[in-house]
Amino acid sequence: MFIDRLIDSIQEKDNPTVVGLDPKMEYIPSFIKDKCFKEYGANLKGCAEAIIEFNRLIIDSIYDQIPAVKPQLAYYEMYGVDGIYAFDETCRYAGNKGLIVIADGKRNDIGTTAEAYSKAFLGSTEIDKQIMQQAFQVDALTVNPYLGEDGIKPFINDCINNEKGIFVLVKTSNKSSGQLQDLVTQNCKSIYEIIAEYVNEWGKPVTGKYGYSSVGAVVGATYPNQAKLLRSIMKRAYILVPGYGAQGGTARDCANSFKKDGLGAIVNASRSIMCAYKSDIWKSEYSEEKFAEASRAEVIRMKNDLNAVLGERAG
Amino acid sequence: MFIDRLIDSIQEKDNPTVVGLDPKMEYIPSFIKDKCFKEYGANLKGCAEAIIEFNRLIIDSIYDQIPAVKPQLAYYEMYGVDGIYAFDETCRYAGNKGLIVIADGKRNDIGTTAEAYSKAFLGSTEIDKQIMQQAFQVDALTVNPYLGEDGIKPFINDCINNEKGIFVLVKTSNKSSGQLQDLVTQNCKSIYEIIAEYVNEWGKPVTGKYGYSSVGAVVGATYPNQAKLLRSIMKRAYILVPGYGAQGGTARDCANSFKKDGLGAIVNASRSIMCAYKSDIWKSEYSEEKFAEASRAEVIRMKNDLNAVLGERAG
Repeated sequence: MFIDRLIDSIQEKDNPTVVGLDPKMEYIPSFIKDKCFKEYGANLKGCAEAIIEFNRLIIDSIYDQIPAVKPQLAYYEMYGVDGIYAFDETCRYAGNKGLIVIADGKRNDIGTTAEAYSKAFLGSTEIDKQIMQQAFQVDALTVNPYLGEDGIKPFINDCINNEKGIFVLVKTSNKSSGQLQDLVTQNCKSIYEIIAEYVNEWGKPVTGKYGYSSVGAVVGATYPNQAKLLRSIMKRAYILVPGYGAQGGTARDCANSFKKDGLGAIVNASRSIMCAYKSDIWKSEYSEEKFAEASRAEVIRMKNDLNAVLGERAG
Repeated sequence: MFIDRLIDSIQEKDNPTVVGLDPKMEYIPSFIKDKCFKEYGANLKGCAEAIIEFNRLIIDSIYDQIPAVKPQLAYYEMYGVDGIYAFDETCRYAGNKGLIVIADGKRNDIGTTAEAYSKAFLGSTEIDKQIMQQAFQVDALTVNPYLGEDGIKPFINDCINNEKGIFVLVKTSNKSSGQLQDLVTQNCKSIYEIIAEYVNEWGKPVTGKYGYSSVGAVVGATYPNQAKLLRSIMKRAYILVPGYGAQGGTARDCANSFKKDGLGAIVNASRSIMCAYKSDIWKSEYSEEKFAEASRAEVIRMKNDLNAVLGERAG
């Protein structure tokens, strides 16, 4: 089951971190860009090859420290067909290194179309009669609940049949997330609470050995009070927490998404890890050439930061 | 401005229809599949080439009758990188035939990531310093409002700067759309009404010569009563209406999304047009080899069906 594999890996690495692979061109050191532009041209293809190289070097440097990576599809779609090739290569490379791959696509549509999205990321595609092929090699996908249950069920079916996972948007980390998500209905519940109740319910059939479900939730680190409430509503959901680091969330903010046993959440960081070599903390120690080592140092710093707070709460 | 180009084209073709290009393999005649599988293999690449061929022949047969096409990204992502290549080729081919291309991706994310999605579909991508390149050649994109305004604004900026359009999900055509969208808040408004008010507001800066905005809305044909209300709330939004035909919506159901002048909405049909040669109406008249002619016959039948109802209302 997806969720058991994820928790096993979090425990083995002693690290509840997922690294967001959102490779903007400005993050990539010039020596990689120059090489790829020379070989493939200063075009979408050149960018895609630079992204693949950058991601590979970062993965090589941190894969023994982290359970999972989360490539954000937007940053690959920006480079067109070549970008999707880079996404595909990145997922395969990470998977081969034993990492769990969470595709961040926030996909959503009506039932039949959600089924197509689910086949793309969590299932497989029928080519002809008995021939099936996997479109992308990922373990889980983020999904948007605006269309209600029949836009979510196809994904859950693939969670059941193919040991995959989803993370449903509940309370997102951005400033205007409250515009819709915080609206309070006539039965005195906010939209995010109502979605959280559904998420907990939807997760029932894919609950694993630790009591958590392969149907998880996204709850931003930037809303620690809401996280506390949501943690209590969604007893079986693993929570994917964006917003740590660059977006302003601290380890203490993230802690509310965890249960007392130190399980229950996985915290994402993207920019702070990919661009560690440019950060105030690490730039004096690591040159551009040593960007991957800086990423490793930041991964270890973040792990210790999270574990210290989680340790305090447990103690 | 996107919306003016769309309305000009609807008026020129006298047809408020957008054809959904959602090419499932079961829709594609065997002679196309056999040829492509023989040349490229029975694999994702073979499927992608069959899709390109199928879409081209349909576009060739109907482009003079319709203003726009709407490829649904899920049905291309199903075929992995090759599928996205087919999406890209389809968009370019349709654009070269003078058709407006609406990418149906229901994209959504926090501000910075929404910006990346917007660059992918409505803007262009910075390669290096002054070099910019377009990732995909489309005119508009469907987007999901769950993250609120800062997840929408980046798309609107590209609507302003690059004469593009978006259609924001308001009330979707599926059965469970009410689970979230129909919830009533403490100020006695439903979620879909509240989103509709935002859509109307967001559309202000991109309002064109006909009084409509490049920020449109998605309202399913399967909810004609809600459509009536939404038409009155969103005075400047062009409404994209899914759910006609295969999903059960009639021309009369769609009519509520139009204004009395016959403008204000564009109705989508996918399966009924792509698979016209298999339908009860057309299968006796058109063999599999003549699938594209059957699609043309169905496009004309649908146009007359819609225009008859719109004419009645005007009269």
